[in-house]
Amino acid sequence: MQEISLKTDRKTQLLNITEQVQAALADTNGAAAALFYVPHTTAGVTINEHADPLVAEDLENAMQRIVDDGWDWKHVEDPDGPNAPSHVRSSLTSTQILVPLRDGKLALGQWQGIFFCEFDRPRDRKVFVTPLR
Amino acid sequence: MQEISLKTDRKTQLLNITEQVQAALADTNGAAAALFYVPHTTAGVTINEHADPLVAEDLENAMQRIVDDGWDWKHVEDPDGPNAPSHVRSSLTSTQILVPLRDGKLALGQWQGIFFCEFDRPRDRKVFVTPLR
Amino acid sequence: MQEISLKTDRKTQLLNITEQVQAALADTNGAAAALFYVPHTTAGVTINEHADPLVAEDLENAMQRIVDDGWDWKHVEDPDGPNAPSHVRSSLTSTQILVPLRDGKLALGQWQGIFFCEFDRPRDRKVFVTPLR
Repeated sequence: MQEISLKTDRKTQLLNITEQVQAALADTNGAAAALFYVPHTTAGVTINEHADPLVAEDLENAMQRIVDDGWDWKHVEDPDGPNAPSHVRSSLTSTQILVPLRDGKLALGQWQGIFFCEFDRPRDRKVFVTPLR
Repeated sequence: MQEISLKTDRKTQLLNITEQVQAALADTNGAAAALFYVPHTTAGVTINEHADPLVAEDLENAMQRIVDDGWDWKHVEDPDGPNAPSHVRSSLTSTQILVPLRDGKLALGQWQGIFFCEFDRPRDRKVFVTPLR
Repeated sequence: MQEISLKTDRKTQLLNITEQVQAALADTNGAAAALFYVPHTTAGVTINEHADPLVAEDLENAMQRIVDDGWDWKHVEDPDGPNAPSHVRSSLTSTQILVPLRDGKLALGQWQGIFFCEFDRPRDRKVFVTPLR
């Protein structure tokens, strides 16, 4: 298992990490798939279009509409304000994604990229990368 | 890794592909699980009830309500009209699902089927099938 | 593949099953990840914060707001009332999650727990646990 470190800049931000995670798979030796796992509870990982950056922006805005900051939230321990909706957005996208490998390379579709999803605030984050046979 | 080819008929359509993906797993030789991966950015894959086709229909309608076509979308490059909401629906369902195998057969629950989720329009689509040990 | 048995108490309930699934992984012998699979169509599994139980409560409430019981549902076969929204909530959270292992232990983040998600009613439920190499 390898760890990748990231820095996010905004409350809700999709970050294209495709190249970084592909680089972490240099010595996969015949692995059939790679697991990308986010060890945080207010972040996630998803696959979507990398070509037009407006797709990521639309996804950021949609996650804030699907889960509304104004709902009656109970978890309010965070000193920077309630982040309960961030937790829900994390579960909706999932904290993990599994991608098949072909000759050691991510078998992504032509338009697909892997995106880290920040839902909390600018933070230091990690992604665990695990090749599977 | 095997590739399955599909044709979809409607803008938003759940297609039961359980038999097709089980057939692709004929020679899994002791694999512990099978990964189904959708290499598209406006489609997904999910598991839900196969017995009553109205469940799939409800799911199609719900995905269109959860993500509204009328929101203020920025990604509008598609000549057939904006498909930004289709991208969001893809991330909500996920482009992949991993199912355990028991004696080479999908260890699905009694009511479970595997559904390809079209969110864009009638298209030629693919699903990658990867057995894992 | 091992089976874990659970009992749920409420219509919509997140149940922290982290200790139970870790115990089921006692003899993983160098497995790289563990798959947790829910063989039901009105339940799911997710990862989120275990420290403050209000996060799980917020998630339960949010799933009932994101998918509204009052929408015009078609699948109504259940004698206890329509559970079509429960099926949609199952697909939104997913019926499976894959977690990396480090020395046979779940490589969860500090605040992460694994939660079974009941979306139907108090029921007897199962989770399949499959170690992967």
